[in-house]
Amino acid sequence: MNKRVDKRNVWSPVMTPFMSDLSTDDQRFVEHCQWLLDNHVGLAIFGTNSEANSLPLAEKQRLIELLVASGIQGADLMPGTGSCNLEDTVSLTRTAVEAGCSGVLMLPPFYYKGVSDEGLFNYFSQIVERVNDSRLRIYLYHIPPVAQVPLSVELIDRLRQRYPDVFVGIKDSGGDWTFTQALIERFSSEGFEVYAGSERFLLDTLRAGGAGCISATANVNPKAIAELGATWQSSDADDQQQALNRIRSAFEGFPMIPAMKSTKAQATDHDGWCHVRPPLVSLSDAAANDLQKALAEEGFSMGETGRRVSE
Amino acid sequence: MNKRVDKRNVWSPVMTPFMSDLSTDDQRFVEHCQWLLDNHVGLAIFGTNSEANSLPLAEKQRLIELLVASGIQGADLMPGTGSCNLEDTVSLTRTAVEAGCSGVLMLPPFYYKGVSDEGLFNYFSQIVERVNDSRLRIYLYHIPPVAQVPLSVELIDRLRQRYPDVFVGIKDSGGDWTFTQALIERFSSEGFEVYAGSERFLLDTLRAGGAGCISATANVNPKAIAELGATWQSSDADDQQQALNRIRSAFEGFPMIPAMKSTKAQATDHDGWCHVRPPLVSLSDAAANDLQKALAEEGFSMGETGRRVSE
Repeated sequence: MNKRVDKRNVWSPVMTPFMSDLSTDDQRFVEHCQWLLDNHVGLAIFGTNSEANSLPLAEKQRLIELLVASGIQGADLMPGTGSCNLEDTVSLTRTAVEAGCSGVLMLPPFYYKGVSDEGLFNYFSQIVERVNDSRLRIYLYHIPPVAQVPLSVELIDRLRQRYPDVFVGIKDSGGDWTFTQALIERFSSEGFEVYAGSERFLLDTLRAGGAGCISATANVNPKAIAELGATWQSSDADDQQQALNRIRSAFEGFPMIPAMKSTKAQATDHDGWCHVRPPLVSLSDAAANDLQKALAEEGFSMGETGRRVSE
Repeated sequence: MNKRVDKRNVWSPVMTPFMSDLSTDDQRFVEHCQWLLDNHVGLAIFGTNSEANSLPLAEKQRLIELLVASGIQGADLMPGTGSCNLEDTVSLTRTAVEAGCSGVLMLPPFYYKGVSDEGLFNYFSQIVERVNDSRLRIYLYHIPPVAQVPLSVELIDRLRQRYPDVFVGIKDSGGDWTFTQALIERFSSEGFEVYAGSERFLLDTLRAGGAGCISATANVNPKAIAELGATWQSSDADDQQQALNRIRSAFEGFPMIPAMKSTKAQATDHDGWCHVRPPLVSLSDAAANDLQKALAEEGFSMGETGRRVSE
């Protein structure tokens, strides 16, 4: 029995619902988090698909406190805390550590491009030294298509050598399986957790010895993704993976965040879920219909998605 | 006589000096700003070369207030106020407007890539509506090599149609003269100010009817660049431009921000100027020596650079 089976291996960068004035819809945020947990998906709040970089620091700190106050356990939370500057990253990371979060998912500083491993090492070292808390656990966030600042194996190696108890994992959203595989081969035997950035790689990741996935579409298809996460050693695992891929493909035909929000809006019969923060743009009605048609063709049931039993 | 001659047409993204703990060196920041003004260069504080995105919001607000308290006029300031989120951008822009700044230089939200003109229009519109101050003047900041979010002619046109008194200019740091020229041809006759992002294009910009340049190396070579800005219609203008280009090339052989800081450190005999915020890395001693050799070969005088007469 693989040790990963007992541990949560599917996380979602939790979508952030907004009111029409773009303030956060607290009630629906908490409800969505609880629904994800009900479906056995962990809460990687403040990821790319959470529109986290469209939110100011204080709002993110408030939302962590809101979730904790609503009874969600720190162990179920892995907030994204990276920003372009040391101070904001340290502040949000401290809030997360103090809330008992299981770890934080950290982008590199993403404004300057072509920066050196030495510069990134210095940056992450400053974070560790300034947070200065033995409870700190950092999952690095490698997402070159968006951040445009990749993280190298050499950098990870150097960080782990200097801070072995702090740098405990990575989310690889590069979309390049060869790199994910290299990370697993190099680091997984040390207990370093390698998460794929999409459920497309969930089965391959788990079979190779990786930790699981942290995936956008776990916001809308959590149950099936978590099911594969729990039963990946079963004989129908490949079939499950194929089914997940087909749903994923339907979403990938549209801008991901507006597409997921549109789907959640339909599932919960609440248009407010469609709001995105600029520079993102909501799906048009026509696109939303096309998406629902594509999802229906894959047997994706809208009615069971996103509505809590208690509603 | 061209109308631009009487107006300041050279600005500098002011370098931010740091102490060894990476806090801002207030005294040297104010001195450097005053030295740039003495050399007829305007203060585009919080630009890319200011490491502005490595600073938190509150620090930038404090620095604007520091400069105003030290007697610097708002008319001499064009702070960079763009960030990835509406709230921080609005807050810093308000601080700048209330300090009487001549305008603000605004990056697009730069985390999400491949965003639409509609999304960017919505973003900038939100900024204008939220700042809600008739004194607001925005200079757009087009720097695709770093921000990786370009601004199109169509977007600028749409913003100017909706807010003609607000969107009054642009800094074009794309490095593509064809685009700068297209901006000048399309918008300059309306009074829209097109600044090149490097003094390499200063003469071409002014001759084409553009406004001038906002250039990193104006931090270290302000007098000569401002001289061309003031005398660009003189017979030796092309020679001046060639001389500026040679100095620029010497700096471009090294990472720009550490190279300029190293040069300022030598000129002012203060090593502290070498500090950069990670993920940037200071020049090695060897590189610093190579740079100074290259500059000396171009007749660039270190002794006259960066030290105020009063020191």
